[in-house]
Amino acid sequence: MDDIALAEVTRGGRVESLHLGRIAVTDDTGRVIRGLGAVEAPVFPRSTVKALLALPLVETGAADRLGLTDAELALACASHGGEIPHVRTASRMLAAAGQSVACLECGAHWPSFEAAARAVASDGAGPTALHNNCSGKHAGLICLAADQGLDPKGYVDPAHAVQRQVTSALEMATSVPHTERNRGLDGCSMPTYAIPLSALATGFARFGTGRNFSSGHASAAARLRSAVASEPFMVAGSGRFDTTLMAHFGQRIFCKMGAEGVMVAALPECGLGIAIKTSDGANRAAEVALAALLLELGAPLWSSADQEVLHGLSCQVLKNWNGREVGMVRAAGKG
Amino acid sequence: MDDIALAEVTRGGRVESLHLGRIAVTDDTGRVIRGLGAVEAPVFPRSTVKALLALPLVETGAADRLGLTDAELALACASHGGEIPHVRTASRMLAAAGQSVACLECGAHWPSFEAAARAVASDGAGPTALHNNCSGKHAGLICLAADQGLDPKGYVDPAHAVQRQVTSALEMATSVPHTERNRGLDGCSMPTYAIPLSALATGFARFGTGRNFSSGHASAAARLRSAVASEPFMVAGSGRFDTTLMAHFGQRIFCKMGAEGVMVAALPECGLGIAIKTSDGANRAAEVALAALLLELGAPLWSSADQEVLHGLSCQVLKNWNGREVGMVRAAGKG
Repeated sequence: MDDIALAEVTRGGRVESLHLGRIAVTDDTGRVIRGLGAVEAPVFPRSTVKALLALPLVETGAADRLGLTDAELALACASHGGEIPHVRTASRMLAAAGQSVACLECGAHWPSFEAAARAVASDGAGPTALHNNCSGKHAGLICLAADQGLDPKGYVDPAHAVQRQVTSALEMATSVPHTERNRGLDGCSMPTYAIPLSALATGFARFGTGRNFSSGHASAAARLRSAVASEPFMVAGSGRFDTTLMAHFGQRIFCKMGAEGVMVAALPECGLGIAIKTSDGANRAAEVALAALLLELGAPLWSSADQEVLHGLSCQVLKNWNGREVGMVRAAGKG
Repeated sequence: MDDIALAEVTRGGRVESLHLGRIAVTDDTGRVIRGLGAVEAPVFPRSTVKALLALPLVETGAADRLGLTDAELALACASHGGEIPHVRTASRMLAAAGQSVACLECGAHWPSFEAAARAVASDGAGPTALHNNCSGKHAGLICLAADQGLDPKGYVDPAHAVQRQVTSALEMATSVPHTERNRGLDGCSMPTYAIPLSALATGFARFGTGRNFSSGHASAAARLRSAVASEPFMVAGSGRFDTTLMAHFGQRIFCKMGAEGVMVAALPECGLGIAIKTSDGANRAAEVALAALLLELGAPLWSSADQEVLHGLSCQVLKNWNGREVGMVRAAGKG
């Protein structure tokens, strides 16, 4: 076990649970600035690479030709909570492509944001594929297909023309081949490719700086970072870590969570990319670990208000059903 | 790190996440038959000890005087999903005590069983404390207070007379002092006391055999095991591990999950108690690890149908939103 302690969960003044994991911090050349744990071992990036998957949508000019807004581009990069603005934005993207919800191949699930799920239930309706947290990513691929005059049907399959384009963008961003040998199937039926944690970090260092990217990718990345910073609610939603962090920091920090405890971030001002994987797949640990790491890595850049936000996100109080404090989730070593 | 690999989560033929933890198997004298990881280190048992907390309700004769049924006793031992039968049974327990939902001090939360939550939402109502997964345990303490002519108000506080009685039962069952020094606050506002994992296992070895228990506890434990075996749905609910396991095995296996990855079990025929804690608090790992352990420990006792159930629970297929198989959660070493 190379993994290090990332986060701990306390109760009654004791550590109740402990999360291990790995952290890679790299620059945009791929140099590992900090490597904790087995940073060359492959991980499935899951939803963390949605912004890289959106590069062709912008780079090809499709987003401009279809008139996609910042909110729509941000949703293409999102794992959203299925709140009403998310669902409406996904619908508008499909409309821009001349399509409807029937075209989505992600499957339906209840909104992850509890109040949104209750609202759907109280309407007597069930959820649709628009509520799927990945509906914006899927709508983005459908827009890409529409702009190229391609039939979107089967766009989740590795052999489909738009899937090949986005996979190629992942390969260019991370400098790692994406083939059937490192392929897994994601929750939304798109492929996800296991790559070294350090390569994932490098992809986001490049996403932040635009260096060691093609010029097309560099300008597309700048456009996407701007869109996400303008519409951080679209990337996740109410009460969510990614939204809270980017609503405060704007373009100074890009971050994105993925299932099974993967987190990525870009710190453009420092030229750094970050990728974290918790060994056990716990997202609560990846969040506090990222906040603590950002607090430290960007230290010279942060105002006291910045520090307060990061400190709060690195040390989250747990309350019970009566609102009584029972413990906390905090980055390891902060006790 | 003393912890050992308990379970792994796979995707695309690779291990995506790995869960560590500890396992204690003891007999009813407290002898450790198998100890993997730091079995003497304290853990918060959380909901795993609900059946031990129900001992005074039966032993004092309160359950009989109030006419509590098997379903009601099983609910006193439960972390239920908030399904309609759970809610109705909790209501009946409160009625038997001459009380109503207003007396519950557990707080309200949405049913954990998704369809039950949707039904509550579509009725336009919110959840009540009856939907709290712990409502049966709380109703049991209220019944105990009612039978003794005590005001139930404040029954969750360590100083309340019924709380002292159930804490004393925990101390006798586990042979470990329960004081403010090892106390934490649980999600339902009851105290939870950190005790060695091996002591937790011993408590359930005794719960299974009735030996090294007071005679009052021994007969109460037999009554509770019978109630739970008769009404396994009440202990958890639709699709839940505890319910599935006990619905098949009846009185041959008692098991109970707790938050943050704690699982206990009793194998009365072998005279063994089991306690498992996942380091990271993941319940998915504790479940598959317990099933694999039961498969092995009870091997001479199991029919091929028994083995099939345990094998299925030790190796659970993961499907995505389109129902496509993406990987599995399985006990470590089963790959």
